[in-house]
Amino acid sequence: MINVAIIGYGIVGNGVAYILENQKNLLKEKANCEINLYKVFTRNWNKNFPYPLKDEKKVYSLEEIIRDKNVHIVVEVAGGIDFPYKVITEAIKNGKHVVTANKALLAEKGKDVFELASQKNIRIGFEAAVAGGIPIIKALREGLIANNIKKVYGILNGTTNYILTAMESQGKSFKQALKEAQEKGYAEADPTLDINGTDAAHKISILASLSFGGFLNFSEVYVEGIENIDTLDIELGKELGYTLKLLAIAKSHEKDVEVRVHPTFLRSDHPLSKVSGVFNAVMVEGDNVGEVMLQGRGAGSLPTASAVVSDIVNIAKSIQIGIGQEIEVTSINWKHKDLNLTKAKDFFTRYYIRFTVPDITGILAKIASVFASYNISIAAVIQKEKVVKLQKESSQHIVPLVILTHTASENSIQQAIREIVRNKLCLKKPIIIRVEDEEEI
Amino acid sequence: MINVAIIGYGIVGNGVAYILENQKNLLKEKANCEINLYKVFTRNWNKNFPYPLKDEKKVYSLEEIIRDKNVHIVVEVAGGIDFPYKVITEAIKNGKHVVTANKALLAEKGKDVFELASQKNIRIGFEAAVAGGIPIIKALREGLIANNIKKVYGILNGTTNYILTAMESQGKSFKQALKEAQEKGYAEADPTLDINGTDAAHKISILASLSFGGFLNFSEVYVEGIENIDTLDIELGKELGYTLKLLAIAKSHEKDVEVRVHPTFLRSDHPLSKVSGVFNAVMVEGDNVGEVMLQGRGAGSLPTASAVVSDIVNIAKSIQIGIGQEIEVTSINWKHKDLNLTKAKDFFTRYYIRFTVPDITGILAKIASVFASYNISIAAVIQKEKVVKLQKESSQHIVPLVILTHTASENSIQQAIREIVRNKLCLKKPIIIRVEDEEEI
Repeated sequence: MINVAIIGYGIVGNGVAYILENQKNLLKEKANCEINLYKVFTRNWNKNFPYPLKDEKKVYSLEEIIRDKNVHIVVEVAGGIDFPYKVITEAIKNGKHVVTANKALLAEKGKDVFELASQKNIRIGFEAAVAGGIPIIKALREGLIANNIKKVYGILNGTTNYILTAMESQGKSFKQALKEAQEKGYAEADPTLDINGTDAAHKISILASLSFGGFLNFSEVYVEGIENIDTLDIELGKELGYTLKLLAIAKSHEKDVEVRVHPTFLRSDHPLSKVSGVFNAVMVEGDNVGEVMLQGRGAGSLPTASAVVSDIVNIAKSIQIGIGQEIEVTSINWKHKDLNLTKAKDFFTRYYIRFTVPDITGILAKIASVFASYNISIAAVIQKEKVVKLQKESSQHIVPLVILTHTASENSIQQAIREIVRNKLCLKKPIIIRVEDEEEI
Repeated sequence: MINVAIIGYGIVGNGVAYILENQKNLLKEKANCEINLYKVFTRNWNKNFPYPLKDEKKVYSLEEIIRDKNVHIVVEVAGGIDFPYKVITEAIKNGKHVVTANKALLAEKGKDVFELASQKNIRIGFEAAVAGGIPIIKALREGLIANNIKKVYGILNGTTNYILTAMESQGKSFKQALKEAQEKGYAEADPTLDINGTDAAHKISILASLSFGGFLNFSEVYVEGIENIDTLDIELGKELGYTLKLLAIAKSHEKDVEVRVHPTFLRSDHPLSKVSGVFNAVMVEGDNVGEVMLQGRGAGSLPTASAVVSDIVNIAKSIQIGIGQEIEVTSINWKHKDLNLTKAKDFFTRYYIRFTVPDITGILAKIASVFASYNISIAAVIQKEKVVKLQKESSQHIVPLVILTHTASENSIQQAIREIVRNKLCLKKPIIIRVEDEEEI
């Protein structure tokens, strides 16, 4: 019998306890392995829990778990970084295998944790850290092992996808859509880490490590959130055939690895454009398999717990046999050297740029000639005859001018924009949205 | 070093050899395990192969592989049933682990093969047998283990999906679309097993075994192909908001398991409706995870080889440690009792029925009253004013009358249709297409 202890009794912890107790027989039948919910620690037991526990399973100090020789697997679902770091490193030092859903910890301090685990031959399960119930970690570590992964990208945050979907389908403003998401329980009271892109960045960093074989410096990952997205750009993008998503992207280059999270236009017929609401989806491009997409619920108590329990079962099987990491098919940093991140100025992609311009003859020609001087090629232009939405802000006649470029370097785009602003060819700071739509060059 | 021998050197075998030799270092780096392409057997070496082998790896008799103590893993990619059955059972008896892409063999004789393997503690990898490069087997065995699977269904045959997509998007007839598929290499010279649904039925039978935990009698699986699909029905379905797919469906009921393959209307906004061309996709409904969908290339040399090699690596790791089946998380028949299949007459679904009726007042009322007498409730009707496409066949004025029912039993539908035919309310045998669109009842 394998004893599991849970640290943190929030919505994921409750889901894990529910599955371990209510589906004990199913797990035993399927996995031929008996798994026991042994103890649970949380700081405050004086609350109502969706899945109340018997008193004998409640633990009031962390030490009772860490020091207990009967505990085989520690499930860390407490949230935060410092406390979980302590929990996990202590658990490892005490010979306990770990399952965690903590993307922030793994993205920011994963190197320490995995290196310690490696020294102690301890397994760390982290399926639930990325895309909830979708088995993307296992797919990358095992199912798609026979591939050089060229690119992995997707919608990794359900809150922002819900908001963008509401903005697109109902024409809501960002604030209205956020409020609706909060009312429906799809956004937290403090949604900062979701809407500013940090959560998706944590997740894509973990996928990048696994896909490209090394750890990276999280503070260098390029992250931009959706908090400043104007519904107007979603509408104009649609006219050009694109759908706006908060996309998390990791690409492998010869000498470095490009990892970025930002609002992104995808062609409306791209499979990820059709992933709406709180759903998550990940697209993997492997040299042999081509494109594989996995889609499902990226959050929520039971979907996330489904992933946690799959790790528990996998690790329980190896404990039964008496083995540790040696059975793991791919370690998270399989190249055993850190990844160099591509600098933002070296990104090379397509751009949607919306200028707010005075309605004066010749402005388009002047802006286009600046682009040309930086070798930026223009693919499409929308110049509206009528003033759209911006009328209130000024008595002047102003119009949105949208330019969609072919592939260009971030550096030349930024230089061109600076020159356009300096020459007062536009009235406000232009809106820049990257477009993920690879072209033959 | 783990030695791999391949039996059968067709397009999948060539792909496996290519990956094992060209990505040897990648596999070693990722999996920390050295895998060697040791020998290959095929009946006729006097052909040109996409990936030519060195002579020293070519083997001219099966015995050279089966009797060779240095062979650790036998990869069976020969096709057919009798010869592979012999290969695999001999390999197992000789203590060799097996990886196969052979869905026909596993669906029709899986019970024998897996039981023998179990006695000998031999691992059988079969990721490539279902949906090519998509890691659906691993997802069901491991990633989604913490779920009671209620339903698994999908597009499991790329040839038929290519044909239906061409019929839908270009208005081609079945014959024209099949011809195009053959010209492009998406359909074989003899496409019988693809278009009559047998291939998809083999695959869904394997998924049903894994999801519900037992073997089934393949000859009892309900299978209907796309060979009689008329483009007219695809068009009329579209008007009702549905897209036609060859769907393979497995559902779990309290006492039995429903497994069926047939042309099926799905709501056009269903994620599977958007899977077009040769792509495959599988939707899994688990009680905890909700709906998870995996999508990718279901056939082709390298995508299928990607799945074969993932099995090779997994098994190689366990050979390195000196273990066999004990590390497998879910055995294919984890309930260890055979599945009872639901009889076709007890299917309970929605139906699209197209009658060819004389253009006479009152026909709809008469047909509707027959339906009512069998307690079949009608959800929608299309009766065209104009004669559509059928004009050539008769000088009589005939019109298509389409009835979309609410959920009804197959038995009552068949009885109603028989009565309508007997009473001469329609001029030809009605077209019946099932609709997968679950309603609250």
